[in-house]
Amino acid sequence: MNITIFGTGGVGQTLAAKLASLGHAVMIGTRDPQATHQRPEFAAWQAAHPAVSLGTFAQAGAHGALAINALAGHASLAGLAQAEADLAGKIVIDLSNPLDFSNGMPPSLFVGLTDSLGEQIQRLLPTAKVVKTLNTVNSDVMVNPAQVANGDHVLYIGGNDPEAKATVMGYLREWFGWQHLLDLGGIETSRATEAAVLLWVQVWGKLGTAHFNFKIVQ
Amino acid sequence: MNITIFGTGGVGQTLAAKLASLGHAVMIGTRDPQATHQRPEFAAWQAAHPAVSLGTFAQAGAHGALAINALAGHASLAGLAQAEADLAGKIVIDLSNPLDFSNGMPPSLFVGLTDSLGEQIQRLLPTAKVVKTLNTVNSDVMVNPAQVANGDHVLYIGGNDPEAKATVMGYLREWFGWQHLLDLGGIETSRATEAAVLLWVQVWGKLGTAHFNFKIVQ
Repeated sequence: MNITIFGTGGVGQTLAAKLASLGHAVMIGTRDPQATHQRPEFAAWQAAHPAVSLGTFAQAGAHGALAINALAGHASLAGLAQAEADLAGKIVIDLSNPLDFSNGMPPSLFVGLTDSLGEQIQRLLPTAKVVKTLNTVNSDVMVNPAQVANGDHVLYIGGNDPEAKATVMGYLREWFGWQHLLDLGGIETSRATEAAVLLWVQVWGKLGTAHFNFKIVQ
Repeated sequence: MNITIFGTGGVGQTLAAKLASLGHAVMIGTRDPQATHQRPEFAAWQAAHPAVSLGTFAQAGAHGALAINALAGHASLAGLAQAEADLAGKIVIDLSNPLDFSNGMPPSLFVGLTDSLGEQIQRLLPTAKVVKTLNTVNSDVMVNPAQVANGDHVLYIGGNDPEAKATVMGYLREWFGWQHLLDLGGIETSRATEAAVLLWVQVWGKLGTAHFNFKIVQ
């Protein structure tokens, strides 16, 4: 499948490498491909992953049958806006978090408590089918949940389009091996999963590793 | 031990009943004891728990060597303010959440994202040792964690006084049988645990039971 990944950072790289290894045609979208190529760290990564192409936000948006937003929270709306027309009608998996580090650690959320970045992206892309997921775990855990407790932990899903959510849940199982998916409801449930990242950050600080997740027990 | 519980609702009743059953001298604090006595539901509960006494916020504050705030979030500051002098120097366990239901379900938080009810209570009671805990689980789970997955799930602790936290952790183990306690740091970590309750509410809605909790897996 042609897949778009917005964002050239560690999260985007981890997802692109995994999806390319599965045989998908991945294009990473960035604001300025030339500038990205000139970043030594990205150039080294791309040399090791020659199957992954790089384009502008609009080029990448046009490439994919499906898009994944792995931009930093504060860069997500501006980046996605440049691909708005190309994303019409498509599924957009949003794994960004609206983390506000302007006062240092721990972060706050720049969207407040009665909105979420997931909802803002859905409003920006009204005909796209935004599915919020993967935002509550580290990128290594996103693509390989089995590395934590053999995959016995939970991943949340939120979005307004039931078919798009079912499709994404299938991909999460097939691509990455996710076993425990909990569909919370509409895209507004992003408020809860984004806010829960504040606790993730605290637990990360105490455990000293990002390779953990939460299991719901009854 | 003489123990104060602020709040006459279901959470306060559950804690009072459990602590009285362990032999502690429990006084529940309320704004107007006469009015509370006249609530048929409370009168029936108190008839079944005659060892638990009822007093004003100030009387109850003076009674306990330790106090537990089980008031509703929006009522916590006004209630505790009436016992401020009586709580000087004491440990105050705060399990309240600043849930704002003014726009219906799901709730928001009335403290915003750069403050917490735990911190507000610590500022209100500057010489008290406020320990935030128990706010991330249902009241039945608070006093009997073993009813969920044999107690194999996590409870968070936050507070500025290390000795007070160690004392409270001892009580949580001894009184209720908590096995997995994670000290996150100072009282400002209440921001994260209070915000995480927004996700608890969503999961509660999907599971259809409040008798669950989260386990950290690595």
